[in-house]
Order: sequence, then C-alpha cells, then structure tokens
Amino acid sequence: MLVKLADPAVSLEASLPGARRLDLPFGSFLALLGPDHPSLEAVQALPGVAWARATGSKPLLAARETFPGGSRVALGGREVGGGTLALMGGPCSVEDREQILTTARFIAACGATGLRGGAYKPRTSPYAFQGLGHAGVELLREAGDASGLPVITEVMEPGDVEAMAPLVDCFQIGARNMSSAPLLRAVGRAGKPVLLKRGPSATLLEFVLAAEYVLLEGNPHVILCERGIRTFETATRNTLDLNAVPVLKELAHLPVVVDPSHGTGRRDAVIPMARAAVAAGADGIIVEVHPDPSKALSDGDQSLHLHEFQRLAEELGPVARAVGRRFDLPRSGADGVPYIRRAVGWGSAN
Amino acid sequence: MLVKLADPAVSLEASLPGARRLDLPFGSFLALLGPDHPSLEAVQALPGVAWARATGSKPLLAARETFPGGSRVALGGREVGGGTLALMGGPCSVEDREQILTTARFIAACGATGLRGGAYKPRTSPYAFQGLGHAGVELLREAGDASGLPVITEVMEPGDVEAMAPLVDCFQIGARNMSSAPLLRAVGRAGKPVLLKRGPSATLLEFVLAAEYVLLEGNPHVILCERGIRTFETATRNTLDLNAVPVLKELAHLPVVVDPSHGTGRRDAVIPMARAAVAAGADGIIVEVHPDPSKALSDGDQSLHLHEFQRLAEELGPVARAVGRRFDLPRSGADGVPYIRRAVGWGSAN
Amino acid sequence: MLVKLADPAVSLEASLPGARRLDLPFGSFLALLGPDHPSLEAVQALPGVAWARATGSKPLLAARETFPGGSRVALGGREVGGGTLALMGGPCSVEDREQILTTARFIAACGATGLRGGAYKPRTSPYAFQGLGHAGVELLREAGDASGLPVITEVMEPGDVEAMAPLVDCFQIGARNMSSAPLLRAVGRAGKPVLLKRGPSATLLEFVLAAEYVLLEGNPHVILCERGIRTFETATRNTLDLNAVPVLKELAHLPVVVDPSHGTGRRDAVIPMARAAVAAGADGIIVEVHPDPSKALSDGDQSLHLHEFQRLAEELGPVARAVGRRFDLPRSGADGVPYIRRAVGWGSAN
Amino acid sequence: MLVKLADPAVSLEASLPGARRLDLPFGSFLALLGPDHPSLEAVQALPGVAWARATGSKPLLAARETFPGGSRVALGGREVGGGTLALMGGPCSVEDREQILTTARFIAACGATGLRGGAYKPRTSPYAFQGLGHAGVELLREAGDASGLPVITEVMEPGDVEAMAPLVDCFQIGARNMSSAPLLRAVGRAGKPVLLKRGPSATLLEFVLAAEYVLLEGNPHVILCERGIRTFETATRNTLDLNAVPVLKELAHLPVVVDPSHGTGRRDAVIPMARAAVAAGADGIIVEVHPDPSKALSDGDQSLHLHEFQRLAEELGPVARAVGRRFDLPRSGADGVPYIRRAVGWGSAN
Repeated sequence: MLVKLADPAVSLEASLPGARRLDLPFGSFLALLGPDHPSLEAVQALPGVAWARATGSKPLLAARETFPGGSRVALGGREVGGGTLALMGGPCSVEDREQILTTARFIAACGATGLRGGAYKPRTSPYAFQGLGHAGVELLREAGDASGLPVITEVMEPGDVEAMAPLVDCFQIGARNMSSAPLLRAVGRAGKPVLLKRGPSATLLEFVLAAEYVLLEGNPHVILCERGIRTFETATRNTLDLNAVPVLKELAHLPVVVDPSHGTGRRDAVIPMARAAVAAGADGIIVEVHPDPSKALSDGDQSLHLHEFQRLAEELGPVARAVGRRFDLPRSGADGVPYIRRAVGWGSAN
Repeated sequence: MLVKLADPAVSLEASLPGARRLDLPFGSFLALLGPDHPSLEAVQALPGVAWARATGSKPLLAARETFPGGSRVALGGREVGGGTLALMGGPCSVEDREQILTTARFIAACGATGLRGGAYKPRTSPYAFQGLGHAGVELLREAGDASGLPVITEVMEPGDVEAMAPLVDCFQIGARNMSSAPLLRAVGRAGKPVLLKRGPSATLLEFVLAAEYVLLEGNPHVILCERGIRTFETATRNTLDLNAVPVLKELAHLPVVVDPSHGTGRRDAVIPMARAAVAAGADGIIVEVHPDPSKALSDGDQSLHLHEFQRLAEELGPVARAVGRRFDLPRSGADGVPYIRRAVGWGSAN
Repeated sequence: MLVKLADPAVSLEASLPGARRLDLPFGSFLALLGPDHPSLEAVQALPGVAWARATGSKPLLAARETFPGGSRVALGGREVGGGTLALMGGPCSVEDREQILTTARFIAACGATGLRGGAYKPRTSPYAFQGLGHAGVELLREAGDASGLPVITEVMEPGDVEAMAPLVDCFQIGARNMSSAPLLRAVGRAGKPVLLKRGPSATLLEFVLAAEYVLLEGNPHVILCERGIRTFETATRNTLDLNAVPVLKELAHLPVVVDPSHGTGRRDAVIPMARAAVAAGADGIIVEVHPDPSKALSDGDQSLHLHEFQRLAEELGPVARAVGRRFDLPRSGADGVPYIRRAVGWGSAN
Repeated sequence: MLVKLADPAVSLEASLPGARRLDLPFGSFLALLGPDHPSLEAVQALPGVAWARATGSKPLLAARETFPGGSRVALGGREVGGGTLALMGGPCSVEDREQILTTARFIAACGATGLRGGAYKPRTSPYAFQGLGHAGVELLREAGDASGLPVITEVMEPGDVEAMAPLVDCFQIGARNMSSAPLLRAVGRAGKPVLLKRGPSATLLEFVLAAEYVLLEGNPHVILCERGIRTFETATRNTLDLNAVPVLKELAHLPVVVDPSHGTGRRDAVIPMARAAVAAGADGIIVEVHPDPSKALSDGDQSLHLHEFQRLAEELGPVARAVGRRFDLPRSGADGVPYIRRAVGWGSAN
C-alpha cells in the first residue's frame, strides 16, 4: 500500500508501524510493503491521509496523476523538465584528457547544458574496449569543471556507486541495466539525479516501473531517456521510438529526454530525429559527439562531428520555439563567430 | 539491366530488342529484364547511354542517386514533395454522405490539401465492417468535388483498379498489400498517383523496392507513407517509425508522408507525432478525422475530432516554418473565426 | 450473427431472410452479416437452432470449440490432420521440367505426401525471378501426375484462381497475402483445399481470423501453416514460431503444418526444426528441396538436397511415433536400397 | 589476441608478458587483451602455439570450432551436455520450506536431475514479491540435500556471489542480466556452473558473447538456456525460439537447455514445447512446477502442477530416445506406482 499524506507535517508512523516514509517534492508518502498491514479503507480513514492506494503492477509515485504539473530535475544549475530544452552531449567513451576536454569546451560554447561520457562501458564482446573505469570518471569530472557543465556517466554495478558519487552530477543507468533492481535501488539511495535509459525491449510501462524503483528509495530526481528499441528493422541500429514521448508524458510526471545517437546508430539521422524529438515534446536531447568519430573507440558511426553538434544546436532552437520551449544559443558559437541563424536547406537532402 | 538514356530523344530500342522503355520525369530508361541480354559493358558503350546498371535486390528507379533533387507528386493542383507541407485527412471509412461531406468541408477550411477515406476496407475479422465498396468511392468523389480536395482511397485488388480510376485522384496501397506485386503493377499501369503505405513488418529497403514495382510500370507518381511497424510495444497500436523519414530520404527520391493515426492508434499521440514528423523532414501528414469518433465504424480511438484537426493544422505551421517549409492556414478557420495563432501550452501535459 | 443448426435437415431461411447458409463437415450454419437482424435471444429460441453467437473480432467457424475433435483435410487420397503425419516438399520455384520431375519422383519414393512448387512468385525486388507463371503450374501438374503426389502452389491474385483451379490440388496463400480478403474469399469460393501461411507479423489470432474468411465462403478445407515470424534475430531468416502449434491447436480445429525452410532460412536448421515441429504436435511438415540448391533461382540457402530430404523422412518417423503419429517410410528409399533405420548421431553436431 | 597452446605443459608467459592464462577442459589458452602486444604472426611462430586469433566481436573460447566435440557441464553427479537428457524443475520462487521440499522430492521421484528455485527475484514492479533472499537460498539448499538434487538459483548482483557460492550448485544469470558484464565476470571468477539465460532481445551471437565473458574468467562450466524472446505476439508471454537450439549448437560448443515455462508463459504449451525442444536437439529442459500454481507468488500461470511434471517426464522419454538420447524414468513414479508408459493421445487436443 502507498499512502499520500495531506501535507508534510503529518506524521502517521505511530499508526502504521513498518511504514517507510518518503518526503518528495511532490508530496510526502508512506510505503507499507510488508505482507501485513491494515485495509485500504482503514488507512484512508486516518486523519491526514490524502489517499491510499493498493500497490501492484502499476507505477504510483511516478504516475502522472500523482503530480500532474510535471517534475523538474535540477542538473548543474539548470533544470531538465521545465520550459527550457536541455542539450547534453559528449563522446560514447572517455578516451583521454584532450578528447574529453576539447569536446566539453566545444559543446559548452554551443549552448550544451550537460556533458556525457562513458567510463564503465557495457560491451557485447568481452574483447571490446571496456572503458577507462574510474580514471575515466575523473577525467570526465575535470572536463565538467573546465567547461562548467554537469557530468553524466553510466554506473554498471551497485558496488561502484559510492566511489563514483562524489565525482558525478548524474548517474546514467544504461539500457541493458534498466531492469536491474539492485542497481536501481543503489542509485536511488545515492540521491543524485539519475538518467534512466529505456531497455531495448522494455515496454513503456516497464520503463516507468523501473523509475518507480528509484523513487521508492526516496530519490525523485529521475530523467527518463528514450534511446531506441530493438525491432526487425536493420537500416537503423535501433528503432528510436518517439511515440515514447507523448505516451510517457501521459503515464508519468518525469522529464523525458531522447537519445537519437543510440536510437538510430546513423550520424545522418541524428539531427533530423533530434528535431523530431523536440517537436514531439521532449524535455531534452542527449547525443554522442566526438572530435574525430572515425577514430572513436566505440560508436563512431553514430557520433556527430563537433561542427555537426553546432549545427544541431542551431537547428533545435527554432523547433523548440515552435513548440513553446526556450533554447538560446550563446551569443557566439564555438568557432568564435557570432551566431546568425543560417539559412539551412531542409529539403530532400536531410 | 536498367539503362538510363542520355536524353529523351535517344532511341536504342533497335539495338536492345526486348527492352521496355520508361519515360519518367527524372529520365528516360530502358529495362532489359529477360534472361538474355548484352553485357553491361557492351550496353554502356552504346551512344546515348548515360549509365547501365545490373538489376538485383536494390532499387534503381527509386534510388536517391537517380534523382538527387527529389521528386514531387502533383495532387489536386498542389504538390507533395516540394516546399509546402501536405496535410491530408479524412475518416477511416466513408460511412455516409453527411459524414464525408462534413469532414471534407471542415478540413478544407482548415487548410487540408487532400481528403482520405476508405471504401474497400481490409479488416482482420471477416465479421467487421468491410466498407461501402464502390458506393463509398462515389461518395468520396462527391465530397472531394464539394470541398475542392483531391481524394485518396485504398484499392485492394487488381480487378478494381479500372472501375475506381475515373473517380479517384490517388490510389492508396494499404500496409497489408505493400508487397502485393499484382496490385503494385496494376496501379503502376493506371498511371495515377499512388500513396504506398509501409507494411507493418517491412524494412525500409523492402518498402522502396515495393515502390520500384510501380515505377517500373512507368508510373513515377509514388508517395511513400510511414504508418507504424509492429513491435513488442503495446502502449501504441503500432510503433510509428519516424526514423523512416531521414532514412527514406537517403534511400529514395520519392516524397515521404507520415500517418500518425495508424502509427500510434492513440488520439492523444497524433498531434505530437505529426509535429515530430514534420520536424524530421516529412513532406506531409495524413491523419484520420471524424465528426464523431465515438460512433466511427472503424478506428474511432485514433481519429481526431474536427476541432482537434483544426488544432493540428494550427500547430503544424510553426514547426513547418522552423524547418523551412511552408504551411499556411486559410485566413479564417473552419468555425468562421479569423485565425489567430493561439498560445498553446506545450509543456508537460502534451 | 452466426447460427449453428441442430442438424443439416433444418431449414430456417424463411425465418431469417438474408442469411447465408454454410453446410460444412462440422455442422450447418447460417451467417447473418447485414446490419439488421433479429436479436440473439430471438434466434436462439427458434426451433432447430443449436446456438447463435454474436460476430465480432473472434473466429467462430474455425474455433476449436466449434469442432473439438479437429478437422481433417483430404489431399490426394490422404488426409492432413489425422493420425498420419503429412510430409510435403518441393522446390521454391518450378524452374524446368527436369527439375520438378526429378524432385517429385525422388520425394515420392521417400514417402512424401505432397508436392509443392512456386509458379507465381512473390518477390521483394521486381528484378528478381518472378516465376514461370501458368507454364509453371502446368509443369507442376505434370510432375504431380508422374509421381502420384497432390500438388500445392501459390496463387497471388483473385483473377488467377479460375485458371489455376483445374490444375492444382491445393492453393497456397503466401505469407505476404495472408490478410488479403479478396484473395481469401476467392480461394474460399473455389472450394479446393487451401494451405494458408501465417503472415510474418501476424498474431496467431489474426492468422485464425484469416482462415475464417475462407470458411465463411463455405470452404472448410483450410490447413494452417506456420512459417516463421519477423523478429530482431538475424541468425535466422525468420523466427520459426513453434509455439504456434500448441496455441493454434487450442484456438482452432484446423490442421497445422510447419515450414522450417522459410521459418529458419538455413539448410542446417531444417531437419532439427522439422523434428521439433512434429514433437510439438504438428500435423505435417512442408520443406523446400531442390536437386541442386546451389543453382536454385530462389531460396537456395534453405533448400534441402535430395539426400537430405531422404534423411529428413527417415528421422521424422521415430519422432512421429514417439508422439503417437504414424509416418511410414516406403519399403525402399529413393536410392532403391531397402530402408533400414540408420544409427544417426544426434549429439552436439546437429 | 587469444592464443591456444599446443598442450597444457607449454609455458609461454615469459615470452608474452601480461598474458592471462586459462586452463580449460578443452585447452590451455593465453589471453592478451591489453593494447600492446606482438603481432599475430609473431605469436603464431612461437613454439608450443596451436593457434593465435585476433579478438573482436566474435566468440573464441565458446566457439564450436574450438571444441567440436562439445562440452559437458558436471552438475550434481550427472552431466549436462552428454548423451543423457537433463530435466530441471522447481518453483519460480522459493516460498516456504514445505513448498520447496514437496516439490523437490516429487520431481526427484519423477527422474528430475536438478532443482531450480528463485530467492532473489527480478521483478518488473517494485511492489511485486521480491523473493526470500538469502533465507530462500538456504531453504533451497535444504531441499536439494533432502532430494539429492543439485540446486540452481539466480544471482542478481556481483556482491551476492560470495555469500551464495557455498550454498548453490549452479548460479543462474537471469534473462534481464544476460549482458551485465560485472555479474558475468563475478560468476566467472566463482568457478561454479552457470546457467546463462538468453536476454529477451538478445541475438544468438550476443548470447554466446555473454558466455564468452564467463569463460574468459577461466570458468568453462556454462550452460546456455533459451527462454523465449520478445516479439509482437501476445498469445504467448514470450516467443520460445527453438531455432536457438540448432543455431547455438553450430555457433558454440556449450550445452543448450530450454525453458518452455518462461518461453511460453502458458501451462498448456509447456509440455508440447518441451518435447519439441528435445526433438530439436536440446541437452535439457528446465521448467517451473509448483504444488499449487493457483497460489504461487509469481508465475503461477506457467507453472506445471506436480502431476503435470510427472506427465512431462513420461512424455520426454520416447522423444529423447527418438533422437538418440537417454532419459530413463525411475522404476516407480512420484505416486509410488510403477511406471508404465501410458497411451497418451497426442492428437488435436495437445
């Protein structure tokens, strides 16, 4: 049973022994998860109870109806989920200091609001580059500090959370680990923002239930990230499922960002699909960008060149404004040249 | 073997007996499809030959490289595939005169550029409403004439093409029939525009090869329509695959439109996904709209109400302009009230 | 509404104008499909009515509960669906007289019970071999007569049914056409046995509803054929879904055969999956076999060599008997050598 | 680079600093995984080197060609992968002592060769029963000892491996964790048998690469388990992909078992699909069985009743023998009655 209190001052722990209290931005709750507890009716009748709901196979804390206005996640002095579009970028893998510093400074100059980079890399083959590990996290932190951008990186096992927490601004749960309850609980307890990627074969309901694991640890700072599902189509690495944006907005109150890099696996599709995601109502975009994709140790085919990231930033602005969001480019671009909206040919060659 | 002639004046039929000539807007071609023909080298050496290519499992006539500028399909005095966004709407099924006339006049007043409506309906169950048949086609024609909109309707078997051709402006090949060679050839021979819907489990390459069947009959007027693929996700009826837009634009030179009604099966997702499709670079949108979706004989759950169609039209304009396309609303809306761009809340409640 | 009559002698047409009568081996029925008809209660109360059911999105004629004992389809003097396993084979495409005659005689000597061969070929590319057409049907007939095997071949459009009917023993509806209502109705009216292949993205319920189209024309001779669905897996051409066997047996009373050739697309998987299909309860197996697969004009990679077909026949016997079915090899094999069950190593190298 | 030594006595560590040595039943290997190492040619020329292969995106240790005879995994005094069929059963979740003891004793009497039961349960909803945890592992151990069956249970995070290892005979890696490298490495280091379940959207190649992670830690005791993939089909919970059996046998040398319980999610499909798996060449079957499925805390719909498990065991024998495997029932069944092969009707009612 999940109980919402009428206001944070209410204390019902005495009446409901064994209840776990969660004080979240959108309400204070008591979770009664053991096998023995009073009836719904009895609890609903207690003074100070806003509502009590049976727990089962549906999300409750994450459900849109629990917080119709929508939640916002603070990240590096800005917010994901409010009126301003978030734009996060960075390489698939942190490879060396120069690579990550160059990328961080460039994308910051283009108006990016977050820096991503993998240090612990989940790879299909044990023979593939497995990431720099903790040293990679440290380099990412350095690049975040140098560029002023909050940093996001994947954590792959519960045992790593503690050592990483002081260095990262946001933990990423990768697509393969979306349904790993121990990992979700661990980042839930850490209390830091979590970028939760949809599993490649997860339904949207399952995706929101994974977020519920994190919220149930008392951590409300969850950003949902659509990054493509696995289908029969082979022209794209995954099938970026933008339907997720309106559907998740209806199911849950959490911010939704979209990753068109993993979602398509094709550099030429990243910018069009990023525009589409914003038009669908996404709260942000996260893409892979590399100073030299041809030499990337992973995901080179889907990484933007730096100048393409700049073009992405330029193209997102008008679309964001067309759907009522803010996304302002810095006065001058990464190349030092003052920004002027260039006339871009959008026609058949997109 | 497919041979492109250097210009339409070239005549090589004498040198290449058995060749079938195709004079298309983007070039004149000779198709040599029999088992016996000269070598590629020999044909390439003939005077007046621009190129000769082996035929196999790739599209040639439809391939982007054959017509890099992109083709446009004339439909009712306008074009699909040029700088102006196409907006087609109408009910899943033509049900009666009032229903189709009301819908046609309303959407025309909102700026629609085409009227769709099913008369021959492919249904999963033989007990479901199978459409009005030829009488439905006649009603659709009447509604098209009354509203000034070109009409699009599905043809399900080759034997119906001849009787329908005088009444329709554009044949639709439904998703289930995408790979029906006899039907593709029949509409190819009819020479009228064809709206070809992607099969629910067709790869994008297979989709373009289906279009190649039509082109190979000498009919270049093919519009590709993404309408969702079948995946494991159950929150949506299909998974609208907007990745198709940039990928098809790279594979083929044909116009690409998107159907978010069948693609999502959810009324609440239609407008966001229509905006997304335009931002991805689609040449047009085709949606289901009904005066009273709750009473529709088919697809009511995904049909827009008339006032929602009006909102769709209003919302598409800014997105179209953000990506460099024109889409102008009429001076006054279907309700007779002069159009003013209303402040629409695009936030979390989309 | 569908009405089952208590026995074939009952005549209710006078009481139920507009009803269509269907006299099938498992009962006599009246179908009232127009918009206006009496209530279920009123009809059920009529004398001579066994039951009356509302029509909708579920199969009725094909439903298991309508004929719990299971139906059998007579084909060439034998039955599909009874206690004896059916084994049908032949090339993907009929290519020439020698190819089809050699194949037919060989498989007949191995105990095959049917000969398949494509004459009208649905191909993804318009440049691929499209089959010999009617001439191919005639060659197939000749091979059927020479070998004593009933012949099965695909029909692709309603307009071809009449010309093909005198030459074929069983019409195949290919996977791409599973949901083509006009084609299903046409073979339904022809009254001959129909081998209906499951569409690559059809659910099992949709598959049975396609069969319902045929039955509703008064033709009960439908054999369901599982032939693989489209999934993300690329190691196999399709994913042969043997779960279909027990599920279809529960949903419908029609015989179920399995095609492991298209289902896997890999010659090395055909025999193991054929054995598995029989063990799952399939009523028969249909495979592709070719005298020289390396020269086949289509589907060479998945076609068995003749000697592999012989091995298939030998291996199916013990599995069939293990699940209570008969499958007896002829006394001597295609090589003239008397059959002795060879000791086959089934271990890791399968 | 992976190097196979000509025999276990060879020692090349001096010549190849940084190499990790793996002494496995099918050979001794050196893994050189760092960025700097000699050329393939140089290594191949060293005395005592059988072969040296570049590492990349293909399995090497697990590859069939590395051990064509096929590997066998010892489990509780028997082997998985040899000439005898393995039959493992047990409840989805260990719920209490009586439940697991009753089940263990019953299935042992039916000829089962392993006992499965979940203690750490990966659940989609955080509100679902999460398993008894370590107490469940202890109960499972007790039931294993009481019945003489080796026990198999899922481990969900690396940090649990050490505490569980003394109590379990085989670690299960669940489908959701198939690609969790930290977990695969942890069970690899533990050195105990591992039952690795295929991820619901993993290709077969990815599946074998996950096994390669375990082998690369020096642990050769990996059993591959097909348990269904996620497709569009809704009649079954997953689509049990029996094609995996012949394809995995060709890709890898590891034993392959099949789980028709999760693979279908339907009790009525478990026995037919278990028979099919054996006929396809599987080395074993693992199913869910519960004394009272209607009261199971998880997966009740797909759990066999005890008497159904007995029928399963009876039906697998003839199929196993038909494909050259041994599977002998005990002299008397779980009900104490001497076993007599009952005449089972396999027909349409399967």
